[in-house]
Amino acid sequence: MLKLYYAPGTCALATHIALEEAGEPYEAERVDFASQAQRSPEYLAVNPKGRVPALVTENGTLTETPALLCFVAQRFPAAELAPLSDPFALAQIQEFNSYLCATVHVAHAHGRRGSRWADDAAAIEAMKRRVPTSMTECAELVENKFLKGPWVMGSQYTICDPYLFTIGTWLEGDGVDTAKTPRILAHRKRMLARPAVQKAVAVEGTQIP
Amino acid sequence: MLKLYYAPGTCALATHIALEEAGEPYEAERVDFASQAQRSPEYLAVNPKGRVPALVTENGTLTETPALLCFVAQRFPAAELAPLSDPFALAQIQEFNSYLCATVHVAHAHGRRGSRWADDAAAIEAMKRRVPTSMTECAELVENKFLKGPWVMGSQYTICDPYLFTIGTWLEGDGVDTAKTPRILAHRKRMLARPAVQKAVAVEGTQIP
Repeated sequence: MLKLYYAPGTCALATHIALEEAGEPYEAERVDFASQAQRSPEYLAVNPKGRVPALVTENGTLTETPALLCFVAQRFPAAELAPLSDPFALAQIQEFNSYLCATVHVAHAHGRRGSRWADDAAAIEAMKRRVPTSMTECAELVENKFLKGPWVMGSQYTICDPYLFTIGTWLEGDGVDTAKTPRILAHRKRMLARPAVQKAVAVEGTQIP
Repeated sequence: MLKLYYAPGTCALATHIALEEAGEPYEAERVDFASQAQRSPEYLAVNPKGRVPALVTENGTLTETPALLCFVAQRFPAAELAPLSDPFALAQIQEFNSYLCATVHVAHAHGRRGSRWADDAAAIEAMKRRVPTSMTECAELVENKFLKGPWVMGSQYTICDPYLFTIGTWLEGDGVDTAKTPRILAHRKRMLARPAVQKAVAVEGTQIP
């Protein structure tokens, strides 16, 4: 059985939701960031990067949200979470998820984990100050260019949707005025109506803005 | 016919190599970063993000290196650039490529494009100072944990290899002592023996350290 390691408030929620959507049995285990459990020898043996999510499978452990989402879609094809046999359509999904992973998540991380990219305190503060601008730019690009509606890729719900929903829960905390991104807010509402989302959010205790 | 927009010294080289490996006709067009052509109205109509790579297909334009690499593998299955029907093996490829995209490339970018993440000059200088440390950590993780050898995923050459090769050409310039990462250097040498790599490197005029 698959086992997902997660921590509340992280991007692990995206994979958590995808696993719920797949409808097959899995385990979910919380990693206690408050006690720095992600740096414990036990957890580093699971994931040497010391981060979540990590998904333990019968073949070994996988990390990185875009990889996990694609894995869930391909492992449980009956759930139809991605157009697996259409190279262009699948690439569009990967393109969107790569953007969330490498641009939006990274912009967000500069508000909390600036010490990854500079040593001095003033620089870390400067990164924090920039977060509302960067995240607003990202949110506007998603709102105006990428989110087709009603789901990210249009009429078909895919692995892009839990990922956007997850990163979307960070927007208000990052200083984005979401009154200006009504399509993202409508997507959030649509997501919250899905039983799989309700379940994962309840288990993690996710704060929805 | 597919058309790749690239600029020398960027991650577009990875997709350029993959297209060469696929062995099917494609076009490659250089975007002149020196004249800021990536910000021209003509190029922004191709890719609103104003970056390379962008791959124009008969169905529309795709961006983001992990997405493009997977697309090339799936579009040209005869080249066997990815284990497309094995969810775990494909997820391992995506995991590695996501790490290069969201962690290693991002660490590198802090040396050149710090203005993405802070406004003040001192903070941007602080980010630059950190690059050798961050990139050394990344290179060591690849060297010791991820690169199975002879290719990234072991005996099978995959879309991970052009991506590692491409980002690997940045290491020395980023202050990484590659004498300490001999397996990455051996991988570079192995790559340079492949005709597809030689061709893409020659067309782009890539500087190999």
